[in-house]
Amino acid sequence: MDYQRVFSKAIERLHEEGRYRVFIDILRNKGAYPNARCFAGHNGPKPITVWCSNDYLSMGQHPKVIEAMEEALHDVGAGSGGTRNIGGNTHYHIELESELADLHGKEGALLFTSGYISNEATLSTLARILPGCIVFSDELNHASMIAGIRNAGCEKHVWRHNDLAHLEELLAAADPEAPKLIAFESVYSMDGDVAPIADICDLADKYNALTYCDEVHAVGMYGPRGGGITDRDNVADRVTIIEGTLAKAIGVMGGYVAADQMIVDVIRSYAPGFIFTTSLSPVLVAGALASVKHLKSSSEERDAQQASAQTLKAMFAEAGLPVMDSTTHIVPLIVADPVKTKRISDILLAEYGVYVQPINYPTVPRGTERLRFTPGPTHNEAMMRELTDALVEIWSRMELRLAA
Amino acid sequence: MDYQRVFSKAIERLHEEGRYRVFIDILRNKGAYPNARCFAGHNGPKPITVWCSNDYLSMGQHPKVIEAMEEALHDVGAGSGGTRNIGGNTHYHIELESELADLHGKEGALLFTSGYISNEATLSTLARILPGCIVFSDELNHASMIAGIRNAGCEKHVWRHNDLAHLEELLAAADPEAPKLIAFESVYSMDGDVAPIADICDLADKYNALTYCDEVHAVGMYGPRGGGITDRDNVADRVTIIEGTLAKAIGVMGGYVAADQMIVDVIRSYAPGFIFTTSLSPVLVAGALASVKHLKSSSEERDAQQASAQTLKAMFAEAGLPVMDSTTHIVPLIVADPVKTKRISDILLAEYGVYVQPINYPTVPRGTERLRFTPGPTHNEAMMRELTDALVEIWSRMELRLAA
Repeated sequence: MDYQRVFSKAIERLHEEGRYRVFIDILRNKGAYPNARCFAGHNGPKPITVWCSNDYLSMGQHPKVIEAMEEALHDVGAGSGGTRNIGGNTHYHIELESELADLHGKEGALLFTSGYISNEATLSTLARILPGCIVFSDELNHASMIAGIRNAGCEKHVWRHNDLAHLEELLAAADPEAPKLIAFESVYSMDGDVAPIADICDLADKYNALTYCDEVHAVGMYGPRGGGITDRDNVADRVTIIEGTLAKAIGVMGGYVAADQMIVDVIRSYAPGFIFTTSLSPVLVAGALASVKHLKSSSEERDAQQASAQTLKAMFAEAGLPVMDSTTHIVPLIVADPVKTKRISDILLAEYGVYVQPINYPTVPRGTERLRFTPGPTHNEAMMRELTDALVEIWSRMELRLAA
Repeated sequence: MDYQRVFSKAIERLHEEGRYRVFIDILRNKGAYPNARCFAGHNGPKPITVWCSNDYLSMGQHPKVIEAMEEALHDVGAGSGGTRNIGGNTHYHIELESELADLHGKEGALLFTSGYISNEATLSTLARILPGCIVFSDELNHASMIAGIRNAGCEKHVWRHNDLAHLEELLAAADPEAPKLIAFESVYSMDGDVAPIADICDLADKYNALTYCDEVHAVGMYGPRGGGITDRDNVADRVTIIEGTLAKAIGVMGGYVAADQMIVDVIRSYAPGFIFTTSLSPVLVAGALASVKHLKSSSEERDAQQASAQTLKAMFAEAGLPVMDSTTHIVPLIVADPVKTKRISDILLAEYGVYVQPINYPTVPRGTERLRFTPGPTHNEAMMRELTDALVEIWSRMELRLAA
């Protein structure tokens, strides 16, 4: 057994397919986002503009968030020092869970160290607790949901993306007595489209299924209080479990689920990914708490972000760039080739000081490689104009096609 | 299908077995640890002494750590805003990985959002990359290691705890050509005993197996630079992958692995639990960096912790309390009954202001329920005397047996 050979072949494959990932080494400038400094591959830090952050509303630099974190840091220290059960359950955790439950109109909420683990732990535990459970999963669900469903070891049916007829076909074919769980996202992060949540809930009612909705790309950004698409569409009470993140629009780190008290208690009591891990640092929890509270009452950031996204989409379209038909804040530009996508990103960074990461397989299907822009409230029109002009120049240099 | 019935039965089972978990709601007092405030179930915050934290060296309140976190918070903001590949790779991450690689004498290191996910992601990915891989797992391995091995879907053999003869028997019986991985911990957290790492490495050499050593309860605390038991025993270069945490002795949050560059690159490129998750907040990374650097050159905290553990074990033994034979900093007191363990813990908190969590199944095997004390450099002799006297009083009140 030659271990080195297996490992080096695994890495070679990535190079051959043009999807070996090189991490860009940056530091953002607090108070001046989207400005940042880029390190590796340059002579010393070089100023750049970040166009691909998921800190969608720049809450990661909001004074209320920074202040709350600083206060917690000085009050209780750096880490929690234990699992939620053994010494790591701080008053901040209790408060944030209560705030998140309220945000989604649910009885309870449960914090995890990340959105990834909240999906993995909740889905795998739920499907294991319900004997014979069948999971119905949208084909574009996030890797963490797929991991949770796979790790449950249960029967699984994948429905075509947002295709209600296909979902119903699969539900109708399943044993009526079997426990069922329909898992989907509200905003699909790479295409920027939205799930028909009310219709999915209708099907869930008809076939007596539970529903699980991942709102990580919507929490903070949609709905009058930032409760996500379920808040905007007024359907939160129809979804059994809402999952969210504190690491995107909330601007900090961590994940959670919100649901009935009984379900929260089951996950809390049975999910290894919740039980056997040090709880979120109280510093992060304090920051997230301030951010969630702020976004409940302020729509300023949400409105500014939507306006930015509209402006950038319009500029891209006007310039003939292949912008995808997204109905949300996400602005994807399809290149459909991993090597070219990487090359455009490299030129943008080296020559224009613009940072946007190439998105290749397995994050998106092969043949749909793209650049994914996430304009926020602090990306102004001058920046957008600069970006659009740069892209048009590169498109022409690389002999890519622009629309007439 | 009555979902409520299944869920409520799952919760009932826990109550019946006396292992329904109630989280104690606390806030630690920075600068005055082990002092803390306890909230729920009391009239307002009540002062307590924490005896069960895994912030083993009180680094969570060390001025260098707090300062580094405050600086990062003001320099770059709260969260990283993205995955390591998409916008979330900060200069702090690069620096900490290089520092951790150096700590363990390895070519590279890779950060994860938690120790749990570092174990789960690394073990499951490694065993999937190596076709036909057989994993040999110590029976007391942590839940996160078990999750990783199970999620790999590979062949698995469990060897009796620290039993080299049994491990060799299993290795010898396996296909000599199959890839093999021996997974174990250095310090077992619930019993406080240590693995015979050099002997395990001898067997790995003999049977051409890779080795994976979880050092989460040893990093920062053992070895001249705090590299763990592999550092103390001078065997780090013989272990293929060393896994550690930033959430215990380092005092912050997060996990990592250290290994050859090639293996780090494989995990970095293939592990869903690494790829598809927002990276650690730069604030946490900056704090962990300061902590690791400090513990590399200072042995003061390690020495004080060892002295505290020795003193407490001696006091317990002298008082006739059933202290387990632990060779490390962990001081377990066996009660062997989940209800009594919880009762003792409740009395300690309510009447003595002492917080030590009952440790029940599934964290430890049934019949070995215990109280687990983790004295650190800031637990003084007067606190230990108070604790011992309280325990003796409760032991007598509950008619439990004391040694002669």
